[in-house]
Amino acid sequence: MAILDVTARGPVTHLRMNAPERLNALSDEMLAALHARFDQLAPDRATRVIVLSGAGKGFCAGHDLRQMTAMRQAEDGGAAGFKELFDRCAALMARIQSLPQPVIAQVHGIATAAGCQLVATCDLAIAADDCRFGVNGVNIGLFCSTPMVALTRNIPRKQAFEMLTTGDFISAPRAAELGLINRAVPGDQLAQETEALAEKIAAKLGTAVAHGKGAFYQQMQMPSEQAYAFTGEVMVRNMLEAETREGIDAFLEKRRPDWSQ
Amino acid sequence: MAILDVTARGPVTHLRMNAPERLNALSDEMLAALHARFDQLAPDRATRVIVLSGAGKGFCAGHDLRQMTAMRQAEDGGAAGFKELFDRCAALMARIQSLPQPVIAQVHGIATAAGCQLVATCDLAIAADDCRFGVNGVNIGLFCSTPMVALTRNIPRKQAFEMLTTGDFISAPRAAELGLINRAVPGDQLAQETEALAEKIAAKLGTAVAHGKGAFYQQMQMPSEQAYAFTGEVMVRNMLEAETREGIDAFLEKRRPDWSQ
Amino acid sequence: MAILDVTARGPVTHLRMNAPERLNALSDEMLAALHARFDQLAPDRATRVIVLSGAGKGFCAGHDLRQMTAMRQAEDGGAAGFKELFDRCAALMARIQSLPQPVIAQVHGIATAAGCQLVATCDLAIAADDCRFGVNGVNIGLFCSTPMVALTRNIPRKQAFEMLTTGDFISAPRAAELGLINRAVPGDQLAQETEALAEKIAAKLGTAVAHGKGAFYQQMQMPSEQAYAFTGEVMVRNMLEAETREGIDAFLEKRRPDWSQ
Repeated sequence: MAILDVTARGPVTHLRMNAPERLNALSDEMLAALHARFDQLAPDRATRVIVLSGAGKGFCAGHDLRQMTAMRQAEDGGAAGFKELFDRCAALMARIQSLPQPVIAQVHGIATAAGCQLVATCDLAIAADDCRFGVNGVNIGLFCSTPMVALTRNIPRKQAFEMLTTGDFISAPRAAELGLINRAVPGDQLAQETEALAEKIAAKLGTAVAHGKGAFYQQMQMPSEQAYAFTGEVMVRNMLEAETREGIDAFLEKRRPDWSQ
Repeated sequence: MAILDVTARGPVTHLRMNAPERLNALSDEMLAALHARFDQLAPDRATRVIVLSGAGKGFCAGHDLRQMTAMRQAEDGGAAGFKELFDRCAALMARIQSLPQPVIAQVHGIATAAGCQLVATCDLAIAADDCRFGVNGVNIGLFCSTPMVALTRNIPRKQAFEMLTTGDFISAPRAAELGLINRAVPGDQLAQETEALAEKIAAKLGTAVAHGKGAFYQQMQMPSEQAYAFTGEVMVRNMLEAETREGIDAFLEKRRPDWSQ
Repeated sequence: MAILDVTARGPVTHLRMNAPERLNALSDEMLAALHARFDQLAPDRATRVIVLSGAGKGFCAGHDLRQMTAMRQAEDGGAAGFKELFDRCAALMARIQSLPQPVIAQVHGIATAAGCQLVATCDLAIAADDCRFGVNGVNIGLFCSTPMVALTRNIPRKQAFEMLTTGDFISAPRAAELGLINRAVPGDQLAQETEALAEKIAAKLGTAVAHGKGAFYQQMQMPSEQAYAFTGEVMVRNMLEAETREGIDAFLEKRRPDWSQ
């Protein structure tokens, strides 16, 4: 059985992390499978939206501590191995945000440590309302310093600091309040709510979404003046797409756009 | 009838965008009228606060798509014209934040695309509780990349990403929750609530407000250490104003300041 | 009686600002006492968490306006003195965030101007539910430009701009909603709730918390890519600590870690 289930439903591709016995830990195999799949989907214009979920009891419990402990056998006590692992994990997070397609986390059960980082990194997230979120590495003496990068770019700093230093979990409704997820829904509606969101976005013009997502994270890291110069150019390129011309013409002529070509 | 109604009520100047038949679109004429008026008001020390509103059914529906479509006739398909338009629009946003006077958006009906950007850009915003906000360009194939610059500097990123990719509208109470506006009020109290806020700020010492607003957006883009060095100097200049000396003396002497000179 | 009460309760050190007749203003003496004490506590590994509170009716009312007014006697009208004061105050704020130990503000009564800045600067804050927060310098003609640096890094910008330009106070529950504090609790439970939070964090591995806090504020000011490179290295150092090895081994072996050595 593959460590990553892949199911395409029209323009929406569902990736389900499938190592339930390890709570879908981000093992070497899982990281490699996700990386390879994202690289394959990136240029696929038929794929408009990607949904990421986990099999079994929870979404993802973070790094694979057994694999990390095994690395300690190296002569340097694991230093090089750990660094390389965190680099690969960071590259995965960057990959998600550099994909042209929006990625929606469909979260149930728990999302902890790097699993919580994964939720924070996805463009959108919907969670079952009994789901819990934590960056609880501090409980075993390993502060969630890399998950913190994604977390502090999603929620206010005092609330992030509390989660990081207490290891306390927050509920899905609280996560929605803080901005970590888009919303919490009853568990039995999680799949259909996520699908509805995915299909709504998949029905938009793919090139427009790709232009916008491509600029979203970059402009946020720029001073406003530079961000405006940059996004102004993105808007020009977007305007010059034939399909956008059709979209605007259709709007002005009060008809539905013909984006079938 | 002028495209921009201007009414001064004591220290508060009301600017009402007046092209209701086009939902106060940011046409060439509207951009020019706003720019010219802001330039005129900037050095006017008698004007302490500016209120920006829209005539007719809504606040502002963004760019003028008919004018933009006409630009496509140019040899370059409109590229230069679009770029110049987005630059002018970005310059208007920068102008609002560089004015010494606080600018309050008084929002009713709808604020969409660059109209939503305008609300996000104003220093303060009060909206009628049945008002709706959207960055819905994606629906016609034109992602709201420039409005995104202002939006993502007001609300959490996942909520911004959802609005941008779904084109869904949010209500005024939700906009207040997310930080896009200061508060939602019943529609029949919108004018008086905005006026009350404007008059409260207009009653403060204008030089102090100008010092503070001048530093507000700049310091936010600096690392903390630099932001403290910069604002420390702003505080010194503020302390050295004669009126501030009078304000502090009056406070220590438990009397009202005499700021009439 | 010392201007700063110091009480160590096991790993938690309580600092109580003790100038109640001046609402614990950040006078020269108070700034010096806080600075000296933080410098002393920084290398003390037995101190795991610091709680900062105020004696009397409120937490802290900001700068000492009488001392500032006295500075006006200098030949330069006070310019050099003011600058030096704001620099010292900014250095105190930076000191709090550079301490290896988390600092919790335990807030009651009022926290205004630089007192509100102090709350915003502490890593965590719990407040009595009848407490009020304001950056109200504008009322006496002195815009809270330096407090703004801390405030705008805690709460959304429009809400910050409103507080700064109106001088209006917000309640503790509202401060919790906006992210300025972690939570509001009934006044008679303030001390015990703060102590419970302090003790929970103090029970974590101190080196892990120090690694994490050391990276928290720095990574937030970096572009994501750089933040990941930086925190990846922090994680490696954290992994190589003997106590962290013990923590992870204990977790994998389903036993309690032995961190007594």
